[in-house]
Amino acid sequence: MEYIVSDKVKTLKPSAIREIFKYAADPTVVSLSAGNPAPEAFPAKAIAEISAKILEENPIAVLQYSVTEGYPPLRKAVWEYMQGKFGVGSDDDDIIITSGAQQVMDLYTKTTCNEGDTVICEAPSFIGSLNSFRSFNCRLCGIPVEHDGMNLEVLEKALQTEKNVRFIYIIANFQNPSGITTSLEKRKAIYELAKKYNVMILEDNPYGELRISGENVPCIKSLDTDGIVVYAGSFSKVLSPGMRLGYAIAPKPVIQKMVVCKQGEDVHTNSWAQMVAHKFMTEYDFEAHLAGLREIYKKKADFCMELLDKYLVPTGITYQRIEGGLFIWCKLPENAKISMPEFCKQAVLNKVCVVPGNAFLTDEAEQCSSFRINFSTPTDEQLEKGIKLLEKLAAEVL
Amino acid sequence: MEYIVSDKVKTLKPSAIREIFKYAADPTVVSLSAGNPAPEAFPAKAIAEISAKILEENPIAVLQYSVTEGYPPLRKAVWEYMQGKFGVGSDDDDIIITSGAQQVMDLYTKTTCNEGDTVICEAPSFIGSLNSFRSFNCRLCGIPVEHDGMNLEVLEKALQTEKNVRFIYIIANFQNPSGITTSLEKRKAIYELAKKYNVMILEDNPYGELRISGENVPCIKSLDTDGIVVYAGSFSKVLSPGMRLGYAIAPKPVIQKMVVCKQGEDVHTNSWAQMVAHKFMTEYDFEAHLAGLREIYKKKADFCMELLDKYLVPTGITYQRIEGGLFIWCKLPENAKISMPEFCKQAVLNKVCVVPGNAFLTDEAEQCSSFRINFSTPTDEQLEKGIKLLEKLAAEVL
Repeated sequence: MEYIVSDKVKTLKPSAIREIFKYAADPTVVSLSAGNPAPEAFPAKAIAEISAKILEENPIAVLQYSVTEGYPPLRKAVWEYMQGKFGVGSDDDDIIITSGAQQVMDLYTKTTCNEGDTVICEAPSFIGSLNSFRSFNCRLCGIPVEHDGMNLEVLEKALQTEKNVRFIYIIANFQNPSGITTSLEKRKAIYELAKKYNVMILEDNPYGELRISGENVPCIKSLDTDGIVVYAGSFSKVLSPGMRLGYAIAPKPVIQKMVVCKQGEDVHTNSWAQMVAHKFMTEYDFEAHLAGLREIYKKKADFCMELLDKYLVPTGITYQRIEGGLFIWCKLPENAKISMPEFCKQAVLNKVCVVPGNAFLTDEAEQCSSFRINFSTPTDEQLEKGIKLLEKLAAEVL
Repeated sequence: MEYIVSDKVKTLKPSAIREIFKYAADPTVVSLSAGNPAPEAFPAKAIAEISAKILEENPIAVLQYSVTEGYPPLRKAVWEYMQGKFGVGSDDDDIIITSGAQQVMDLYTKTTCNEGDTVICEAPSFIGSLNSFRSFNCRLCGIPVEHDGMNLEVLEKALQTEKNVRFIYIIANFQNPSGITTSLEKRKAIYELAKKYNVMILEDNPYGELRISGENVPCIKSLDTDGIVVYAGSFSKVLSPGMRLGYAIAPKPVIQKMVVCKQGEDVHTNSWAQMVAHKFMTEYDFEAHLAGLREIYKKKADFCMELLDKYLVPTGITYQRIEGGLFIWCKLPENAKISMPEFCKQAVLNKVCVVPGNAFLTDEAEQCSSFRINFSTPTDEQLEKGIKLLEKLAAEVL
């Protein structure tokens, strides 16, 4: 039987990345393709303690319906944390708790985009967000990313020529997949361009707390005196992704519309997750936990870059050093005799799995000579084994 | 600043029902307007036990990313339960776990409806689902509900004349808000009409396990030999709504599209909730728990109908006796001198809160002489006090 599929979803294909994940499930394949936090990064003991406590003291609050905006004590805790630490959130803003930051992309796109409207994003960018925009039949316009952020000339040109641009989507810190951090100068320039051309900015910051070197760069939202930035925050990388907990801080009228949409989408976010996160932020040493995470990821990132220097750089593969996040972006040499999808396919056949850069482009059919490595999920042994397998392959095919 | 709002969301207004809930929050007002399960219906102790166990034995599985389709053991448990007990699900079907059944309405509408497409629903119907359909700019066409389900002539006429009808939305058991159950004859007739006019059926069954008298009527999905029914199930009324756990059983191509959409919406449903529900279904006596719920709700419903007979029926207010669910639908007498919204407003001023029937119509401005009473949330004392307050008001204004 032929089922009727809406126009917006008809264009939505399961991505190439999913094909790769099939191979990654093979236990004999070393997977450097995921984006999972390191298992040792979860404060499992604290979460078990808190969980026992709330289910003992206040089970009805955990189990009964709650309000769409989010558990009020968590909203307050996140608000105070983000204002105090990052200057995110003004009197004109409000906060909504969401089922992961992914839902911020969904809700904000739903509230502001008609089918055919344009979303400007970095190229490459996070495939989950791109698919969320695609699922509302948005036109994607990718702006090439340089070592310090989007190419500003291409961005301004796009703002001048693209029709019905609704917002600029940006991961300013340790971008997924490129690993780059947008400089303060470019953040300011992007903000001014958004203002000049009357479009909003959707700032997605899942990795902001995972800086392992260099100086913190202010969030674009902290510069937002005009009410044009929607900030998406996530607990996935600082607490647990299985909880599905995120939030948006944005101008009040935007949050109001997102609340109405969320009510029709999932009523409210799982209460257990909200109450656990609240207690973890307010009754435990959240800053010490974050410092611990940075230590874990610094070790892993440094080790990964050491391995890359030792094994891949000599083959002609290059990469940009990162200051945080979970990903490193590797580039095949100019004169490589092999295409990127073919390189990744050969890699899988040689028992190591990385993600071809095409998967992160607005048009997957476009050429791309880079691939993404994740260092947070594999163990040190797996990482070393995987990179050595890549070295062997590179020696053969490049 | 004027923010750009998409066409589909522009038409989405916070409902009249929300205004009423503001009053319901006043502790001096007796609220008969909610739809919450009775607090004593939660198996809080079992959930605390299971939660402690999974966080002790397998914390990483609770806290790490999971798959979009849902936690495989839960999918299997629900599938076997629904097939074994209700004959729901065939070889051509698949199952997806969702963040509450509300998300089934959202995902299915998203996958199949373009803006302007028509959804046929019962009139009155559940406002949360109607708002979900509205949020995709669907046209709603309401079919009047009789004591045994939709009026079939009006339904067929609508199927003949409405453009681009995508599906018929139906709550066949103990409908919210009317309390009625669609007869087997009408279920079969609605199925045949859907087949004849080539539209799908979205069968929403949140209250199916809460039958307190009469005989079980087969789900429409159990009659689905043509692959035209999407079944929405929920854990909200049988386990906990705060968990936000539901599922859809539907033809494989439909589930595939829903999975792609869910990935862009919230990646996956909270893992803790999925693992708790799985263990509760498979390691505890789920049937005994359901029997306990039916006992709780039978007592409450019988008590509520006794009160209605004693206090409201003498004032000229009528109602249809229910065989399950959480709601009773009361009707003002034909010659009432007061409009329904005015009656509900006066009720709130007299410290009792019920929901005006208009709130459940496809056009809230339409006339409606009924109001909805919920008996699951209030205590016996609150219920008696509330109904006496309604009696006093009725004596004054009818």
